[in-house]
Amino acid sequence: MSPAIANSRLLKIAPSGIRAIHDRRRATSLDLGIGEPSLKPDIAPFEAAVEWVREHGCPYTSYAGLPELRELVADVYGGKFCRAADNVCVTNGSQEAIFLAIKTLAEPGRDEVLVPNPGYPIYHKVCELEGIAWRSVDFAAADAFTPRADAILAALQPQTRLIVLASPANPTGAVMPPSEVVALARGLSARPGPPVYVLVDEVYRELTYTDEPFTSLADEYPYTVTVASLSKSCALTGLRVGFFIGSTEVTAAAGRMHSLVLMSASQFAQRVALEIFRDPIRLRAHVPWYIDQRRTMLDSARQHRLDILEPGGAFYVLVRLCGRHAGDSTAAAYELLDTHDVVTVPGAVFASNTEGYLRVTWAARREAVTEGLARIAQFLRT
Amino acid sequence: MSPAIANSRLLKIAPSGIRAIHDRRRATSLDLGIGEPSLKPDIAPFEAAVEWVREHGCPYTSYAGLPELRELVADVYGGKFCRAADNVCVTNGSQEAIFLAIKTLAEPGRDEVLVPNPGYPIYHKVCELEGIAWRSVDFAAADAFTPRADAILAALQPQTRLIVLASPANPTGAVMPPSEVVALARGLSARPGPPVYVLVDEVYRELTYTDEPFTSLADEYPYTVTVASLSKSCALTGLRVGFFIGSTEVTAAAGRMHSLVLMSASQFAQRVALEIFRDPIRLRAHVPWYIDQRRTMLDSARQHRLDILEPGGAFYVLVRLCGRHAGDSTAAAYELLDTHDVVTVPGAVFASNTEGYLRVTWAARREAVTEGLARIAQFLRT
Repeated sequence: MSPAIANSRLLKIAPSGIRAIHDRRRATSLDLGIGEPSLKPDIAPFEAAVEWVREHGCPYTSYAGLPELRELVADVYGGKFCRAADNVCVTNGSQEAIFLAIKTLAEPGRDEVLVPNPGYPIYHKVCELEGIAWRSVDFAAADAFTPRADAILAALQPQTRLIVLASPANPTGAVMPPSEVVALARGLSARPGPPVYVLVDEVYRELTYTDEPFTSLADEYPYTVTVASLSKSCALTGLRVGFFIGSTEVTAAAGRMHSLVLMSASQFAQRVALEIFRDPIRLRAHVPWYIDQRRTMLDSARQHRLDILEPGGAFYVLVRLCGRHAGDSTAAAYELLDTHDVVTVPGAVFASNTEGYLRVTWAARREAVTEGLARIAQFLRT
Repeated sequence: MSPAIANSRLLKIAPSGIRAIHDRRRATSLDLGIGEPSLKPDIAPFEAAVEWVREHGCPYTSYAGLPELRELVADVYGGKFCRAADNVCVTNGSQEAIFLAIKTLAEPGRDEVLVPNPGYPIYHKVCELEGIAWRSVDFAAADAFTPRADAILAALQPQTRLIVLASPANPTGAVMPPSEVVALARGLSARPGPPVYVLVDEVYRELTYTDEPFTSLADEYPYTVTVASLSKSCALTGLRVGFFIGSTEVTAAAGRMHSLVLMSASQFAQRVALEIFRDPIRLRAHVPWYIDQRRTMLDSARQHRLDILEPGGAFYVLVRLCGRHAGDSTAAAYELLDTHDVVTVPGAVFASNTEGYLRVTWAARREAVTEGLARIAQFLRT
């Protein structure tokens, strides 16, 4: 690609480390890489959506999406402050919602965005694409990378306009403790000057395994934008339905951005989502499977004496590298794939402070998880 | 919306004039406004896609989309130079493809984009959102707004990097004559310096009614990016399947942009599209209906002595305003809606040189078109 014919900021962004190793997998590989459930989705909402199309055709929806769906989504994810259809814009997956939030709320050349370290790389890549300054908030390995209010509040600068958080987090599985959520809301509310917005990525919200009930910042702080999705909870990664949830005025601005980027989300996909949200217990239908699967993963890791960070949520586990592999997670992940045919993701993809780890997805088939962990243990002894 | 909390460029962009009047319609209104077919789509591709999901689940596709679909799309829309899967990225409707083309190919603060006048307003709005300079190329009312190579070539400046064209065009229905397509390709190829790209919006490509065969710039000029979609040809506006088609390197860059904006298009929607492209005659299944519908529209316009521009393609007709309505298409369209309950779109939405017209969509039900034109004629006599 000649720099003369493409956006210069785009050309500087590193390619996806997750997709890079994913694309190297063989047909025989045990795939513990990409964050995709191996469960199959419920087909009934698809059948209902086809019936709707048979009767009504497949017209545009309004830019922000179907009002009934948006109202039901607000009810599930809106927290204390976002209770109505006007608080929700339906997006092409959570990734579009993240893109909209950063591009709408931060002004290039003026504002700064804080992103979690470790964290999903798309947050800082979107900042780079948009020419928006960003800095990391580091969460400590010794603290199992738990998101802490103190660390976030200490990182604020006058130019900070947006903080990105994920809970449960990718790649760590860490869940922000309720006391930390409350402390962050208090600290941000006490800050003088214009409000700092917080983008909370809650795509793994249904998948938590901690004793404490899940607490969302959306219940505590009015300047929260929540990002949610059906991808993980309902095994619908390929449907591309996500949600941007925020105050009426912020959602109106994001919806305007959305209309310029791609007009609206798919009518069909929204009809599938509507079926699910009309009976929201469906959002939790896969939870028992994940609880069981996590137990298997933990048993297997213990059996093979793997040094792991026990995840409180999501469906990843960080495995600590040791011996000759400790210093270079990228080399380790590729060697593991080449010699033991297991796909994982190098910790380096997510940030400097996860360099010494591999991210292992345990949403794969059970036998792939147990056999994969056995092979990782074997590999780490080489 | 406080300017302090949103992207300042976003806040300056005018809202959609099409949606504004659309949102004012009543249940009783004859809707000749929004560009949406009243036909129902073939349901068989949806049923096939559901069977696929039942068997395989609904996983992510690769960023650019299903390879088999991309290959088939290249075969239909790729022209002479874009023959392979790598020349195609599947997008969330043609609008995302337009967004990607402008954002990928033009550098803010350096490059300039030429947009057609009259034309679909999204072209210049995306430029404004991205901070990219744009200028209009004016096509003449006396020439039925036909896109002419001379006008385009005369508008080029050293900083021009991208030209946007639509054929058949919205709102005029004008089709660029084959001789003009060839002349444009020659003129651009003869130009010294780095290549100027052309984005040709061909979402109405199947819907032409001229004697000459349709000629695409993609057959004549290698620096063409073609935007296509199933929205209009197959009455699938709400499915949100579009295509970005260009050289391998440009498509790779656009696909990278696409991956940062929203990851990938819907697996389900791509499966519906795949069914259609495996039997591409389906892309033309609605053509006989449009030919018939156009004849009805022309007969009706003649009967009511409306001054129209006979469209060579698409499904719009420009009706010239007269008498006290001639100077203000916005006032005329809203008054027409209020007094005669007919939704149209003011010509001013599309550019200065269509100020004296209303855009009338004749893809509505037949009786709505004939009755709507009768009421417009009646209104114009007031």
